[in-house]
Amino acid sequence: MSKTKTHQEVLTANKTYAENFGEKGKLPLPPARHFTVLTCMDARLDPAKYAGLAEGDAHVIRNAGGRASDDAIRSLVISYKLLGTKEFFVIHHTDCGMVLFNNQIMGDLLSKSLETATVDQNGWRDVGHGPGSPEGTKIDWLTFTDEDQAVIDDVKKIRNHPLVPKSIPVYGYIYDVRTGKLNEVPGAAEAGAAS
Amino acid sequence: MSKTKTHQEVLTANKTYAENFGEKGKLPLPPARHFTVLTCMDARLDPAKYAGLAEGDAHVIRNAGGRASDDAIRSLVISYKLLGTKEFFVIHHTDCGMVLFNNQIMGDLLSKSLETATVDQNGWRDVGHGPGSPEGTKIDWLTFTDEDQAVIDDVKKIRNHPLVPKSIPVYGYIYDVRTGKLNEVPGAAEAGAAS
Repeated sequence: MSKTKTHQEVLTANKTYAENFGEKGKLPLPPARHFTVLTCMDARLDPAKYAGLAEGDAHVIRNAGGRASDDAIRSLVISYKLLGTKEFFVIHHTDCGMVLFNNQIMGDLLSKSLETATVDQNGWRDVGHGPGSPEGTKIDWLTFTDEDQAVIDDVKKIRNHPLVPKSIPVYGYIYDVRTGKLNEVPGAAEAGAAS
Repeated sequence: MSKTKTHQEVLTANKTYAENFGEKGKLPLPPARHFTVLTCMDARLDPAKYAGLAEGDAHVIRNAGGRASDDAIRSLVISYKLLGTKEFFVIHHTDCGMVLFNNQIMGDLLSKSLETATVDQNGWRDVGHGPGSPEGTKIDWLTFTDEDQAVIDDVKKIRNHPLVPKSIPVYGYIYDVRTGKLNEVPGAAEAGAAS
């Protein structure tokens, strides 16, 4: 099977990385710096770069929105319980795609077509020609409308989860995609404080 | 509230990153290279480095195991449907912690204590002094026993999901933490092929 250009580019980049791997092959499984970052899948975010992580330093969990989904909680619990992390960072970002739609819009778009939709000042528009699927109407897409509140909600969900120890502080930040800066969300420190 | 050493280190690293942000502040929301990586949260993995990604290039989804959980599917669907990605990479890795336990072990450990457990040749041991929580017995931790099969299972789950278009190829790889190399899983190309 011939490979796409993208597929081949990834393999070529990997070859170069592996050729200069050095001592990284000796790193142990548990994170050396004992913390975990939960952040968005957004392409503009590189948590290793924006938070200063070398290979081996910290767990990184990413999903659409950087939300404290049940699956993110699964990962956070594995992170501290089996691999010894002691601090959690929840890091959303400005200009997040999760504020541009909601469950109704996504369910409708997917029902019409599985092709990529387009967006303009009049909202989302589906230019696809089907087939679509009604399955999208059954999913909670975890969108939000208020950036700060979404971080607070996620910090609180983690803080109050019965499987998360009270000793682990949960920090709440928003990464500014225009400046690269992490800005603490007002109220997050109190909402996520250890006790 | 005074900050922990780790918390302060992350903020200091971020300050340096932001000071050298350059033109990255102009990047648009959709991934420039139109693909998505689903990989493990493991601290030794840096997908931007192992796959050659610059900021703005590709979506990165990460969870414990790099599994095609329902939440990973949520993120993948948002990735292609609203932001135009056209290829998906599922990338697990060698020496993954997800083969070291199962639902029974995790449920038992969490029922005894919410402190970090230890592991030796006799298996996991809980040195904590409680309190624990029975909530861990209700969660599917998505562990696996066979590295290759787990990748194939995840590629197939994505391939066969009603909300994933048949036009998107799903690749299956295992990252070798000793060498830094991406190795294609036998059978993954066929299991994830576009049609």
